[in-house]
Amino acid sequence: MATAGKVIKCKAAVAWEAGKPLSIEEVEVAPPQAMEVRVKILYTALCHTDVYFWEAKGQTPVFPRILGHEAGGIVESVGEGVTELVPGDHVLPVFTGECKDCAHCKSEESNLCDLLRINVDRGVMIGDGQSRFTINGKEIFHFVGTSTFSEYTVIHVGCLAKINPEAPLDKVCVLSCGISTGLGATLNVAKPKKGSTVAIFGLGAVGLAAMEGAKMAGASRIIGVDLNPEKYEQAKKFGCTDFVNPKDHTKPVQEVLVEMTNGGVDRAVECTGNVNAMISAFECVHDGWGVAVLVGVPHKEAVFKTHPMNFLNERTLKGTFFGNYKPRTDLPEVVEMYMRKELDLEKFITHSVPFSQINTAFDLMLKGEGLRCVMRMDE
Amino acid sequence: MATAGKVIKCKAAVAWEAGKPLSIEEVEVAPPQAMEVRVKILYTALCHTDVYFWEAKGQTPVFPRILGHEAGGIVESVGEGVTELVPGDHVLPVFTGECKDCAHCKSEESNLCDLLRINVDRGVMIGDGQSRFTINGKEIFHFVGTSTFSEYTVIHVGCLAKINPEAPLDKVCVLSCGISTGLGATLNVAKPKKGSTVAIFGLGAVGLAAMEGAKMAGASRIIGVDLNPEKYEQAKKFGCTDFVNPKDHTKPVQEVLVEMTNGGVDRAVECTGNVNAMISAFECVHDGWGVAVLVGVPHKEAVFKTHPMNFLNERTLKGTFFGNYKPRTDLPEVVEMYMRKELDLEKFITHSVPFSQINTAFDLMLKGEGLRCVMRMDE
Repeated sequence: MATAGKVIKCKAAVAWEAGKPLSIEEVEVAPPQAMEVRVKILYTALCHTDVYFWEAKGQTPVFPRILGHEAGGIVESVGEGVTELVPGDHVLPVFTGECKDCAHCKSEESNLCDLLRINVDRGVMIGDGQSRFTINGKEIFHFVGTSTFSEYTVIHVGCLAKINPEAPLDKVCVLSCGISTGLGATLNVAKPKKGSTVAIFGLGAVGLAAMEGAKMAGASRIIGVDLNPEKYEQAKKFGCTDFVNPKDHTKPVQEVLVEMTNGGVDRAVECTGNVNAMISAFECVHDGWGVAVLVGVPHKEAVFKTHPMNFLNERTLKGTFFGNYKPRTDLPEVVEMYMRKELDLEKFITHSVPFSQINTAFDLMLKGEGLRCVMRMDE
Repeated sequence: MATAGKVIKCKAAVAWEAGKPLSIEEVEVAPPQAMEVRVKILYTALCHTDVYFWEAKGQTPVFPRILGHEAGGIVESVGEGVTELVPGDHVLPVFTGECKDCAHCKSEESNLCDLLRINVDRGVMIGDGQSRFTINGKEIFHFVGTSTFSEYTVIHVGCLAKINPEAPLDKVCVLSCGISTGLGATLNVAKPKKGSTVAIFGLGAVGLAAMEGAKMAGASRIIGVDLNPEKYEQAKKFGCTDFVNPKDHTKPVQEVLVEMTNGGVDRAVECTGNVNAMISAFECVHDGWGVAVLVGVPHKEAVFKTHPMNFLNERTLKGTFFGNYKPRTDLPEVVEMYMRKELDLEKFITHSVPFSQINTAFDLMLKGEGLRCVMRMDE
C-alpha cells in the first residue's frame, strides 16, 4: 500500500474537553508499531459509553481524545509481529481484547484478557505508552484502544475481530459492542431454555439485544421492564410479550414479576446498571432454578444487597462482560449469525448520518431517541 | 407383619422443652395413613440442626417433640397409596421430600419440592395435620417430617430414599443430611474441574464433606478456612492442602486467599452460615470463571452485601439446599458411591453410643467434639 509506513493525514472528530461538541479536525495518524494494525474505518456507531466518557461526569477526564468504539473497517497496514491480519481484511474493532496467551484467554469461560482488558483511563497504546494521533505535533489521546471516530485509527491486533468480507460493515459494525453485549448475556450466560420466561430490565439497545437473544433461544414469555412506557412498542419487535413499568406499582417490581409468573421468571437480564434494578432482577427469578445475569455497569459506590436465603433457595447470580464473547474467537461467528439471517441487526439501526454530523448522533443519544446511529465516514 | 395397622409402643427420646436433656419414654406410634410409611429406625445420627431446634434460640419452639433426621431404617408397614415401598425395604429418611409431581420435582435443576420442602415449624403430618406420636394420649410433635429419635416413626413416602439393602445402615445413615449436603454442594453445584483450587469455609461435617467432594473431583489445591486452628489436622484426612485462619490476618480473608492463589480460587464453598464468611467466599473467587456456593443457613436478619462489579467481572454466586440432591431420585446413587468405595463415610463417624445415651451425643456436639455420633437403637 502506498500509505504503509507513512503518517496518514485524515479527518477525525476530536473531543477537546468534557461535554463540548466534537470538532472535525485533520489529524496525523502514525504507522502501526509492533502488534498494532492501522485500520480504515468505514462505519462507526455511537454507544452510550462514548457519551459517558465525553461527559466525564465522575469519570477520569482524558482530553483531548478521539472517542468511538463501535465500528467496522478494513486493514490498511500492519505492524511488526502481526501475522493474523493483512491489508484488506475486514475487521471489527473491540474495546476489550484477546491476547490468546493469558489465563483468561486460555480459559473456556472467561473473556477478561489480562493484557487487553478494557481500560477506560488509558489514552495511549500499550506497546510504547504513546498515542498514534497528533494534530500539528500535539498528542491526542486514544479511547479504549479503538478511537473509531477517525477515518484511520491504530488498534492492537488483539482488539480486532477478522470477519467475513461479504458482511456489510454498515450493519455488522453494531456488533462491536452493545448488541453483542446484550445478545451474549442471554445466549452465553443466562441460557434460557425453549419455552421459558425471561425478564429484561432496561430496554435500550443492550436490553433489546438481550431480548433478541431470548427470542432466538425460544423463550415463550419475554417481560420487558423499563421506567419509560414508550419503550414497549419498540420492544415488541424484539419479542417483548409483556411490559412492566415499576412506576405503575406500589410494591417492589420483583414482587410484581413473581406474582405475574407464579413464582418467578426463569431468567432475568439486567441492562441498566442501576443497583436497585440489579437487586430486583435477582429477586424476581424463580427459586430452584432461576438465573439472573448482570450486564449494566454500576456506579462506583453501588452496593448490591439481598438476603442470603435468596441464594440458598437455589437462585444463581452471574455477571457478564461483553456477553462473554471472546472478541477474536467468537465475534466472527456472531457476524455469521447475521449472514445466515438468524440475527436481525437492521432493527437496531434507527439512524444514519454522515460522519461530519457526528454531533447530531450525540444529540439523538442524549435525547434518548432511537437505538443506534451509524455514521458513514466517506461522507 | 404382625404390627401392621396397629399402634406400636416403643422407646423414643422426647424433648419436653427447649434446652432440657431428652428423656427416653415409651411412646405410641400410630399406623401410617395415606402416602405414609412406618419405619423401624436402626441407626440415627445427631446433626447440628437437631441441636438448634432443641435449643430453640430464635427458632419457633415446638414442644414436646421427637427430634432426629439423620438415620437409616427398614420399612415396617405402608399406608394407602404407597406403591414404591414395601415392608422390609431399607430406607434413609430425609428432612425434605420429593413428590415427583410439582414443578420443582419435574425440573432437572431443583430439589425444592413444593409439597414436601423442609418445614421446621410444622410438628404434624401433612396429610391430616395430626401427629402419629402420643404418650398416654398426649400428642408429641414431629420434626421435619422424620423424627428419627424413636424406634419407630411415621414418614411421608416422599421423604424416604429406598437404598441398596446390602448397604450398612450404621454407615450410610449419615447420608440422610449433612454429608450429602456438603458433598453435593461441591459435586453438583460448584463442580470444580480436575486440577483446580477450591476453598472450603467452615470445617465441620458439612464443610469436610464438601472438601471430600473437591478431592473426589480432582482438585489439586484445597484450602480450608476456619477460626479454629485445631480443625486443620482432621481436615488433612479430607484432602486439605492449605489452612487459613482469618484470625491470623489483619486484612480480610478474601484478600489473603486472592494473594495466595494469584488472583483467586476457582471455586469456594461456604458451610458456616455466617454472612461475613459468605461475602468472603464470594469475593475470593477468581474473576472470569470463579464460582462460590452457599450452603450454610444464614441468620434471619443477615444481609449479603458486595460491590456489583464483583459480579460484572464474571463471578458466579449460587446457593444450594441438600447439595441439590433429589432425595428419592439421587440418594440411592450416593449410597452406591459408598458401596463402590469412591466415598469414604467411616471417617465422618467419630463416635457411636447406644440410643439410651443420646444426651451424650448432644454433649459431644455442644462441645464441638468429633463429627458424627451414630446411635444404635437396639441398645
